[in-house]
Amino acid sequence: MIDFRSDNTGRAAPEILDALIRANSGTALGYGADEWTARLQDRFSDLFETRVRVFPVATGTAANALSLAAISPSWGLVYCSAASHINTSEANAAGFFGGGLKLVPVAGEHGRIDAAALADLLAAVQPGAIHRGQPAAVNLTQATDLGAVYPLDDIRAIGAIAKRHGLRVHMDGARFANAVVRLGCSPADMSWRSGVDILSFGATKNGGALCDAIVVLAPDLADGLAVQLRRAGQVWSKMRFASAQLLAYIEDGLWLRLARQSNAAAARIAAGIAGLSGLRLAARVEANELFLDMSSAVMDGLERDGFQFYRRSASLARFVCRFDLTDAEADTLIAALGRHCRAQQAA
Amino acid sequence: MIDFRSDNTGRAAPEILDALIRANSGTALGYGADEWTARLQDRFSDLFETRVRVFPVATGTAANALSLAAISPSWGLVYCSAASHINTSEANAAGFFGGGLKLVPVAGEHGRIDAAALADLLAAVQPGAIHRGQPAAVNLTQATDLGAVYPLDDIRAIGAIAKRHGLRVHMDGARFANAVVRLGCSPADMSWRSGVDILSFGATKNGGALCDAIVVLAPDLADGLAVQLRRAGQVWSKMRFASAQLLAYIEDGLWLRLARQSNAAAARIAAGIAGLSGLRLAARVEANELFLDMSSAVMDGLERDGFQFYRRSASLARFVCRFDLTDAEADTLIAALGRHCRAQQAA
Amino acid sequence: MIDFRSDNTGRAAPEILDALIRANSGTALGYGADEWTARLQDRFSDLFETRVRVFPVATGTAANALSLAAISPSWGLVYCSAASHINTSEANAAGFFGGGLKLVPVAGEHGRIDAAALADLLAAVQPGAIHRGQPAAVNLTQATDLGAVYPLDDIRAIGAIAKRHGLRVHMDGARFANAVVRLGCSPADMSWRSGVDILSFGATKNGGALCDAIVVLAPDLADGLAVQLRRAGQVWSKMRFASAQLLAYIEDGLWLRLARQSNAAAARIAAGIAGLSGLRLAARVEANELFLDMSSAVMDGLERDGFQFYRRSASLARFVCRFDLTDAEADTLIAALGRHCRAQQAA
Amino acid sequence: MIDFRSDNTGRAAPEILDALIRANSGTALGYGADEWTARLQDRFSDLFETRVRVFPVATGTAANALSLAAISPSWGLVYCSAASHINTSEANAAGFFGGGLKLVPVAGEHGRIDAAALADLLAAVQPGAIHRGQPAAVNLTQATDLGAVYPLDDIRAIGAIAKRHGLRVHMDGARFANAVVRLGCSPADMSWRSGVDILSFGATKNGGALCDAIVVLAPDLADGLAVQLRRAGQVWSKMRFASAQLLAYIEDGLWLRLARQSNAAAARIAAGIAGLSGLRLAARVEANELFLDMSSAVMDGLERDGFQFYRRSASLARFVCRFDLTDAEADTLIAALGRHCRAQQAA
Repeated sequence: MIDFRSDNTGRAAPEILDALIRANSGTALGYGADEWTARLQDRFSDLFETRVRVFPVATGTAANALSLAAISPSWGLVYCSAASHINTSEANAAGFFGGGLKLVPVAGEHGRIDAAALADLLAAVQPGAIHRGQPAAVNLTQATDLGAVYPLDDIRAIGAIAKRHGLRVHMDGARFANAVVRLGCSPADMSWRSGVDILSFGATKNGGALCDAIVVLAPDLADGLAVQLRRAGQVWSKMRFASAQLLAYIEDGLWLRLARQSNAAAARIAAGIAGLSGLRLAARVEANELFLDMSSAVMDGLERDGFQFYRRSASLARFVCRFDLTDAEADTLIAALGRHCRAQQAA
Repeated sequence: MIDFRSDNTGRAAPEILDALIRANSGTALGYGADEWTARLQDRFSDLFETRVRVFPVATGTAANALSLAAISPSWGLVYCSAASHINTSEANAAGFFGGGLKLVPVAGEHGRIDAAALADLLAAVQPGAIHRGQPAAVNLTQATDLGAVYPLDDIRAIGAIAKRHGLRVHMDGARFANAVVRLGCSPADMSWRSGVDILSFGATKNGGALCDAIVVLAPDLADGLAVQLRRAGQVWSKMRFASAQLLAYIEDGLWLRLARQSNAAAARIAAGIAGLSGLRLAARVEANELFLDMSSAVMDGLERDGFQFYRRSASLARFVCRFDLTDAEADTLIAALGRHCRAQQAA
Repeated sequence: MIDFRSDNTGRAAPEILDALIRANSGTALGYGADEWTARLQDRFSDLFETRVRVFPVATGTAANALSLAAISPSWGLVYCSAASHINTSEANAAGFFGGGLKLVPVAGEHGRIDAAALADLLAAVQPGAIHRGQPAAVNLTQATDLGAVYPLDDIRAIGAIAKRHGLRVHMDGARFANAVVRLGCSPADMSWRSGVDILSFGATKNGGALCDAIVVLAPDLADGLAVQLRRAGQVWSKMRFASAQLLAYIEDGLWLRLARQSNAAAARIAAGIAGLSGLRLAARVEANELFLDMSSAVMDGLERDGFQFYRRSASLARFVCRFDLTDAEADTLIAALGRHCRAQQAA
Repeated sequence: MIDFRSDNTGRAAPEILDALIRANSGTALGYGADEWTARLQDRFSDLFETRVRVFPVATGTAANALSLAAISPSWGLVYCSAASHINTSEANAAGFFGGGLKLVPVAGEHGRIDAAALADLLAAVQPGAIHRGQPAAVNLTQATDLGAVYPLDDIRAIGAIAKRHGLRVHMDGARFANAVVRLGCSPADMSWRSGVDILSFGATKNGGALCDAIVVLAPDLADGLAVQLRRAGQVWSKMRFASAQLLAYIEDGLWLRLARQSNAAAARIAAGIAGLSGLRLAARVEANELFLDMSSAVMDGLERDGFQFYRRSASLARFVCRFDLTDAEADTLIAALGRHCRAQQAA
């Protein structure tokens, strides 16, 4: 059994749970008024090279939906990729927390939105039009839900269009670490320097356990969001146990180390299967996910071998590399894919 | 420094964190499709002597607000104590998750609602009236926010009134364990056997760390709630780490042991200060909280001594006993109260 | 049968329905892009001595709830009188349209909120507190739900407190005309010059038929509100028929003439019953409503005589004067009250 | 100037405004407790051959959104045509009133949803899946937004699929009259006998003035909806003026007469332009709308002639026939189309 189903099927990095244990001493004020949470503000401000507000939350869905609710009125339109997690997988949390805001798909490749397509959509909006809602925000998923990574120039282009139309920008960074590692850029470059106002900072998919975070880069958003989070049941009374996890996650570059491992595993597999006939990468491998076109017979064979992965369609399979996937496990998949593809060719 | 501010300023019980560590092995499907969460259903069903559905959530506020949203339409009226946590301290989470539902205070003593007062309110509702909203649910806090515990007969009486009017019943059990220990009854008696449809099952205030739970006792509520929780960002993808905490919490009666300790500490203090002049219990001590009328000079004295507690008014102080409060710490408070009260009398 | 139940049981002023008929010629663009609605903007801007935006809406409840939603975030607190219509009679429309905002009662007499009481409440709010919601807005009902009228100085005092704390001010002017007539002031003085940001401008209770209006005095609120109204189903496609009513309502001072009549009727009754024993005005009569303490035997007698009115309690009756109540009808009530009171005294 | 922009640019039928005037006598209890509204219940129950509840509302958007909110939980999925008014033109009112419900487009021709496509979508839903929301309701627009009419068999097929999956069915009948006239069937056949639970009964587009209605065909929905409407600001206090309009609308078959006229005008134009080259009906003309493919030069020519209509794209124009469009006006359009098309051919 080798599990490629998702990065959230994996373990937590031991460093993160250790920090949680270490935080279990003495008393501490509730609801974020503790020293761990105070330190969290400082560490993230260092990391992002500006003063940010960080709010630990239970899940990426909470981070996304509450971020969007912070930057859109309830009658707002939020532009996003049709493939985005907020559009496909979060039970319309954005529409719920946003009081009825509506997601508007924008064309683009591999889960990205295309800057020109966004510009066209916004240019077509009539001033004073009331029948569709009011353009309010843009959502980018970085890395995307199809394993791609936006280059910085693309983020900047989208950010500039958004600003020109008075829209705020949210980045769904469930795999922010994987994208940072991929581009070799700073968190600041990937976010506020490129026009991002608010960020879902993912940890769970990259070795975290029970929390992600919202990083507020536009200071005016923070105070209202703080109340909204309390009301959303996303403010732990024993917050130190969440903040301690996030502190450990970024300490000494742990988060980047973990993402480097899962990215490397995906790249290793991509390299290992290059040239195999009967197999095609549906998108370039830019983070820790592989989307592979293959026959269902090959998928059947893999499942018989004990590999776990998701079938996205009859001919598309998704393989996600966890931070703790070993080289040996990656190689086992490479070998199996080779074997089944060759068997198919022979048949 | 001895901390009586809240039970949520305290540590987590080590057994609970240990379980979290032990859960960190192998891969497991996300969003609750793991074996820990499956086991959680069984263990809680045993505990409640009926088949229940248990949903781990991040906070008590989430448990309360989503429970109420599950039993009230958005135009519903929810009857509760004016002193209830949902009314005073959760930033109107109930109104938010409930899409605009409204809380209606019911008279009663020490944070309880009075069955007769509830009956009167409901009797005064005109059939077909549309100007105020539709009676939908009743909320009980057990133990109450003023340290009291409803006897089973009171719960049953309220449950019967609710049923007669077609209302569902939610119990905010942030301190459920303290109440069970106090009454020496079973969880089943305290809940569904007395008319409770859905329960916020608190763990955080009683040695938990990062999760509470919703226990669904009326089966028809569970499927919709499951979707609502997903949408509310309350379904962890690495759910096993939450379920493991809750499993440890109830294993071998840990939860009752912890509550017995904090209840005993409160009772010890109550006994120790009996007869002190200048000090008066604002309510009988039935769980782990003491509400004490005293002069602000006495409060000042305690703070100079290093005691931490909340001033509810110029003459009312709240002291909450944590599960890990020691007898020595309790006795130190008793002594200090004696000292300051005598000094006041002398002055 | 003489009907004192409510001003909304009355007829519409014929001038208003005539205007509706006159508007029924030719074609006109939908959703407010017609010439009647354009003219409405100009006429109301003249009336209020500043550039306003006017939005016809179907009901006062819509006007109130959507106004409040425009000036409060969903986690906001709206300060109002406990007796206010938004708190007692609109099925929590404010909480619904406001996405969960919460009403906070402020002390005051006769349906007013007291400026000092408001200041105290706001002074007690802790900066950064997240447990109750964020102060956002103040609601004034003018005339109040108990027949009183705020003097301009009171509105200004409340407006100043609101501004000092960053709160916006909404006036529920369901009986705005009655208050303007009572004070003899201008609509501008009663609203934006005294700190009001947005106004529910009532017509229905004062001879209107099927629409009231929101008058936006703070220009930044208008564009978002326009979308919100569309989404709320409050933008008629054949808007000209609503705008024509409102134009007729304010043309040649009709609205003030109508309010003068109903105020005068109430004053006539108040004068006519002065000194009657067994009868007491529960509040000064400042608009078109009388709240009278009397025995239930007197109420029974009035009902036997064919008078219609509402019993607010066993000893409190409300009488509302419509614009078309005749002097003869008023005198009939005065005579009947005298008769029944004297009979009671004799008994 | 001949106006083909929309049926809502037209006048109201004089009979409807006359009824409004006639209702202006005497006093009547507010909020629907009047005799006109009582009579409305009876007349619509006769019309639909079953006991229905009828709620006048200000707009079709209100009718649609509140109907959907009545049949879907806030986490529900509502299946509809991508071209449906609720999806394209109501500023996400359904998502707002529905507390975050999400619209899911279903394939189909000419604004219809295809029964087989719906069945496929529902068959693909995993039991217990929580990531997308819960299937809750189906929305049909009859006549559709592209001028088509569902045959009864199609409605029945969709109704049957819905019932099999536990979904409720809403019909957006903004042009219900046009569809009834087209099919020559009864309102009962078009609605509850074919599986419709709740109906937006349009009047405005067919000679109405200021109200449409919700007709509740599934009795369990009515009581909650009544409160929801009150809260939505859709219950006029002087309801008689709305009910009187709707009574006049259906009296002596007025509504069918009006729809027959607009349908006939559209058919007359369709017949008149048959065979013209350079012109193509984008859909069969089944109600009172024509969607015509033509060159933009032809559109320019029509506009120069003074015709008003909407350009849906560079090559698609929409012409809507009002109830009071005369034969002469229709013939003028036919002639102009002929002239411009021939000119284009010649060029």
